Amino acid sequence: MKRYKREDPVSYALGITLTFELLKFAPETARRVYIHSLMEHGESYDKLMSLCKDLKIETVFSDKPFNILSQKENCYVIGEFDKKFTPLDKNASHIVLNNPSNAGNLGTIMRSAAGFGITDLAIIRPAVDPYDPKTVRASMGAVFRLNVSEYDSFDSYVQNAGSREIYPFMLQASKKLKDTDFKKPFSLLFGNEATGLDDSFLNVGTSVIIPHSDRIDSLNLPIAASIALYEATKNTDF
Amino acid sequence: MKRYKREDPVSYALGITLTFELLKFAPETARRVYIHSLMEHGESYDKLMSLCKDLKIETVFSDKPFNILSQKENCYVIGEFDKKFTPLDKNASHIVLNNPSNAGNLGTIMRSAAGFGITDLAIIRPAVDPYDPKTVRASMGAVFRLNVSEYDSFDSYVQNAGSREIYPFMLQASKKLKDTDFKKPFSLLFGNEATGLDDSFLNVGTSVIIPHSDRIDSLNLPIAASIALYEATKNTDF
Repeated sequence: MKRYKREDPVSYALGITLTFELLKFAPETARRVYIHSLMEHGESYDKLMSLCKDLKIETVFSDKPFNILSQKENCYVIGEFDKKFTPLDKNASHIVLNNPSNAGNLGTIMRSAAGFGITDLAIIRPAVDPYDPKTVRASMGAVFRLNVSEYDSFDSYVQNAGSREIYPFMLQASKKLKDTDFKKPFSLLFGNEATGLDDSFLNVGTSVIIPHSDRIDSLNLPIAASIALYEATKNTDF
Repeated sequence: MKRYKREDPVSYALGITLTFELLKFAPETARRVYIHSLMEHGESYDKLMSLCKDLKIETVFSDKPFNILSQKENCYVIGEFDKKFTPLDKNASHIVLNNPSNAGNLGTIMRSAAGFGITDLAIIRPAVDPYDPKTVRASMGAVFRLNVSEYDSFDSYVQNAGSREIYPFMLQASKKLKDTDFKKPFSLLFGNEATGLDDSFLNVGTSVIIPHSDRIDSLNLPIAASIALYEATKNTDF
């Protein structure tokens, strides 16, 4: 066992809560569960053991993976899983991230997307790893409930996305979010944390701005994406 | 010079961008500016020097504070400032955080509040330090543009806040955010990251829920607060 690398076919859910999310929502991808000698025996432990038994998932009692994979204290369970990339649903609405660079931000956006019922996530490379254990942790397990797909370019995404209206979010846009009528299926498109979307995206679909005061330069990326997700889905009956 | 502690009267803006925010928006609190020997001489450097000269702020050329205060590479400027707590404006709308526990979250909420024109922030103790250098960094300098006030209890906040409508955000509420009409001046009230607001807040003002799917347990705190800030201020002309 080695430190996690992007090119590995597997990744890791660090902690018992994330491992339960894995076993519950993506059990077909779960390979094995590591258990630390300090893991307390009790209700959670019994639940974990019986779930692994039912799903026929190997349990490995060893402290070694924890030293390699987890810097955190109190992490006594690790779920190892196969990374899964799923073609997006052409009839569903998508969230599309062009060159996201921060694992925590990507995970937070996954959590908000799942929260607002958008289950298809497109990532345009170069981009941070959607299955980096840091992304997985920030997603609070939402990554196990999403269809995640990577593309080499925005054009390649468009060619595979099916017919839809695309809404690029950018400070150069003139249409305000509150005045935007989102036609389903839609794609909400966001740029990189530092650079946003360049002017060429003004020619794509309907570009949208979330107006803010001049007291800040920009909203934080997961904040902007989550506000857009909220507004675009606010008439859904959750 | 020692490592930052909460009880210190001063805190630090780590990095040149944050230091410019300090000098621009809270110059009266700036004590001195530390400059590292690796700081490049050029346009930014000249601008910093002339700003410090104009504002009569001491510049200290020493690498030592950087070893003590900054774990980050590429941090070559540190602004030292007096922490400032300002009584809130009784006629303005507020954002109120009950026992926030994470510095990054608090800073992100400050940035969103400034972005949506809410400049008064109340923090109910126990709470994370609003002037921790981590909070300051996550705020991207928004902390220098806000009135920040701490209270020992929610009651003490209410007694000092002036007449207003309070909107506690909680999963136990029945009024949906999209159906809520925010009467100014308002207070948007949020609970702790892990525990939220307890049922007793159902009796305070108009409690509000941001509905989400059952695919997640809850929205991340700065996401929920920012969505509320967006919705409550969406008719403002930024």
